[in-house]
Amino acid sequence: MKIENLLVVGVGLIGGSLALALKRAGVVGRVVGCGRRVAGLEQAMRLGVIDAYDTDLPAAAARADVIFLGVPVGAMARLLESMAPVLAEGVVVTDGGSTKRGPLSAARAALGAAFSRFVPGHPIAGSERSGVSAARADLYDSHKVLLTPETGTARDAIERVEWMWRQAGAVVESMDAGEHDRVLGITSHLPHVLAYALVDFIARSPDATRCFDLAAGGFIDFTRIASSDPVMWRDISIDNADTLASSLDRFIDALVVIRQMIEQGRGDDIEQLYRSAREARERLIDKRGGV
Amino acid sequence: MKIENLLVVGVGLIGGSLALALKRAGVVGRVVGCGRRVAGLEQAMRLGVIDAYDTDLPAAAARADVIFLGVPVGAMARLLESMAPVLAEGVVVTDGGSTKRGPLSAARAALGAAFSRFVPGHPIAGSERSGVSAARADLYDSHKVLLTPETGTARDAIERVEWMWRQAGAVVESMDAGEHDRVLGITSHLPHVLAYALVDFIARSPDATRCFDLAAGGFIDFTRIASSDPVMWRDISIDNADTLASSLDRFIDALVVIRQMIEQGRGDDIEQLYRSAREARERLIDKRGGV
Repeated sequence: MKIENLLVVGVGLIGGSLALALKRAGVVGRVVGCGRRVAGLEQAMRLGVIDAYDTDLPAAAARADVIFLGVPVGAMARLLESMAPVLAEGVVVTDGGSTKRGPLSAARAALGAAFSRFVPGHPIAGSERSGVSAARADLYDSHKVLLTPETGTARDAIERVEWMWRQAGAVVESMDAGEHDRVLGITSHLPHVLAYALVDFIARSPDATRCFDLAAGGFIDFTRIASSDPVMWRDISIDNADTLASSLDRFIDALVVIRQMIEQGRGDDIEQLYRSAREARERLIDKRGGV
Repeated sequence: MKIENLLVVGVGLIGGSLALALKRAGVVGRVVGCGRRVAGLEQAMRLGVIDAYDTDLPAAAARADVIFLGVPVGAMARLLESMAPVLAEGVVVTDGGSTKRGPLSAARAALGAAFSRFVPGHPIAGSERSGVSAARADLYDSHKVLLTPETGTARDAIERVEWMWRQAGAVVESMDAGEHDRVLGITSHLPHVLAYALVDFIARSPDATRCFDLAAGGFIDFTRIASSDPVMWRDISIDNADTLASSLDRFIDALVVIRQMIEQGRGDDIEQLYRSAREARERLIDKRGGV
């Protein structure tokens, strides 16, 4: 099952950590990195994340058994188009994008018959840090990876990607791409938008300097995800715009209700809402076996 | 300057940590705890946080040099009223409430002439954990404590409270109570409301179970403050309702703008907002010397 020739397109936190995890497991022959910035690829070489690099994507893609796209979801269409003509028979193409409907339609449009070799994936792991210097062999240990294959996706391609992620330490689950985007839109994309929005809101306030001076640990944690890569999150926001817009609408409605409770001094309602939120979060933490 | 007889009313995370920090510094004679739950006071005794307890507040208050109120801000008026008739001359009363206008008006109404002995304070430290079992001697080390005295507050009372907090490891700043509530309303109270609101929003969604199953580390951090004490935050929300309601209004407006950007696929605007938010947060982190 060993991967003789793994091509990682976009050697950052996600792609770099996958390469390191597969090397750790001893299940990969040669890891080739592909990207736009030679300096980043040189750094990935120095860090032992990749064994070689190539800035010519079609040339590198033609030689690969497994191709992993670790790039912002908005960049995938172009990359898939440029590699489509050269893909070897039996190749498996997969990705680590945080939305799944976008990469799927990009692959469907770009790959033609080879679309059956595309297995969309999303590792539920990461960090607000980005770039290959943040890559770690253990990033995926015991973390979930969600695969969202279509009915036409080749069985052996799915199995190869499942195997790959298990070797990287992850727990693999399959789900529908639409459900993925709906659920992640609420638990991940919406919080990111709120965190960015809050920091921006404070930065624009007349009290900005004073606010940041007096920010406590709660604020630092609450806004950690606002240090995430802006391009990656721009692409996610656009790719999952329908879910995000409707979640924002409903969340705004919920805020309006809470605002009313606060303005009207309805202590019992406020306490009940806070209490049930705390209980829901505590159940979640218990289920995960701690923070 | 040693405090011979410190009375801590409400021996939880905040009051308990103050007692431990002053004991660590060796500047307190006897620490008496006062509270409604004997079990909690017994626990505080076992943990060495207090030396004695008394459930009769006026009796305990009559013997104290310094009285610290570590209770939700909504409980302060009643406590101040009950201790007002017995306060010794030269006593200093202070608090750790997260809002300052409310405790100030409660003290003004309850204490009469002794209002000049009330020094409102707010340590910018804490945890989503509550109760005396979470108390730590080092909770305040290098953390800010904001004091918001009025023009009538006695100079020696302010100095005593400043000294006390420095002994506890904190850095003391003074500011206007109105400014305090406005600034903290944005950097602390608003994020708490958003965190509670988001968890409640998800818990009520039809996909709740699936959402919590797939929640990642970002969500856990983002919602950490939603595990805070509901009664404490109910009181803060009501006490700072005017600031919170207007902040919520403006924040909702900001969300509506972002929602439009997302729905209209305005990638450049989205990226710019996310980028400037990230930069503002990074500046904040740099200034603090790291997370």
